[in-house]
Amino acid sequence: MQQRSEETRARLLQAAEFTFAQCGYEGSGVAEICSAAGVSKGAFYHHFPSKQAVFLELLKSWLLNLEESLKDVHQEAGSVPQALVRMTDQMERVFQAADGRLPVFLEFWIQALRDPVFWQATIAPYQRFEKFFTGLVENGIEQGSVKPVDPAIASRVILALAGGVLLQSLLDPEGADWEQVAQQGIHYLINGIAEAKP
Amino acid sequence: MQQRSEETRARLLQAAEFTFAQCGYEGSGVAEICSAAGVSKGAFYHHFPSKQAVFLELLKSWLLNLEESLKDVHQEAGSVPQALVRMTDQMERVFQAADGRLPVFLEFWIQALRDPVFWQATIAPYQRFEKFFTGLVENGIEQGSVKPVDPAIASRVILALAGGVLLQSLLDPEGADWEQVAQQGIHYLINGIAEAKP
Repeated sequence: MQQRSEETRARLLQAAEFTFAQCGYEGSGVAEICSAAGVSKGAFYHHFPSKQAVFLELLKSWLLNLEESLKDVHQEAGSVPQALVRMTDQMERVFQAADGRLPVFLEFWIQALRDPVFWQATIAPYQRFEKFFTGLVENGIEQGSVKPVDPAIASRVILALAGGVLLQSLLDPEGADWEQVAQQGIHYLINGIAEAKP
Repeated sequence: MQQRSEETRARLLQAAEFTFAQCGYEGSGVAEICSAAGVSKGAFYHHFPSKQAVFLELLKSWLLNLEESLKDVHQEAGSVPQALVRMTDQMERVFQAADGRLPVFLEFWIQALRDPVFWQATIAPYQRFEKFFTGLVENGIEQGSVKPVDPAIASRVILALAGGVLLQSLLDPEGADWEQVAQQGIHYLINGIAEAKP
């Protein structure tokens, strides 16, 4: 029984991801998600209290994946500028994963601006990323590989660059080689904040 | 009569801007806009074929204003790096103007991803900005104030930075001094792409 219940939960998450990408967050109801999963509404509410809860669960797992891989890169890279370059090389994977997810995430985000519960759920992962890159820059300053910039500000500049490239790639997918834009952007930024090698 | 008609049109645009900011794009109907303007539906359709047309008209005037002031700054500044710094100093005005408008613009943008007519309307001003900054960087390379980077890529990096800072400021208005983030971001970027002074 336990196993079947977990299968149902996984099927609901998969169906929700598909339905959100196809119809948007607003356009997807519990009924559509159940129908895509081939599951009853009763089963849905056994696993999730609401559509919002399913979305938050999906969001959590996307972002956890991303955080894990960023941490791995940080540990493996020799210096902080190297880590930033390698993280940017992973943008291809982020772009592919974001395809279909990002519009839904944006929709969710806009709702977040009007709803305090949504807002808390959206701001928490953002603040984790913000902290992660602040720590990375602090680390680089200690190492001597990054100039003594304000780490909290540099962190937000890195996030602005990543978010801004993702947004443009969504709006105009054929308009540029977006991986190259991300790579050049981080390259300019590193040029701007890295200590010149002795 | 002509004057009254123009007044009605202006009142409708003002009411639409207010209604979109309060209720979002999806949540605002022609009825709500008419009621906020104190104008009949007949008068509305005399001026605009649809809600979408009103929104596009608002978008056009916001972006024209922004483009005009960017062009002025470019002409007045001595070098391209100076122009970029001065444009960033204007971010305060952009932040204030964007307040209330940006969520609606984002909502519109997400719809654009699903609707070709919306998409054309959204991509056109984006591409004008993209061209403007490409020209600016080309100009800097000719002047000798900017390194020989790829102007089209550098332009997209500048737009990524501006868009990414605006987005974060929307999500977490109290989370940072966003003008300072924009200023530092452009400062790092200029450090990365400017030619060292002889």
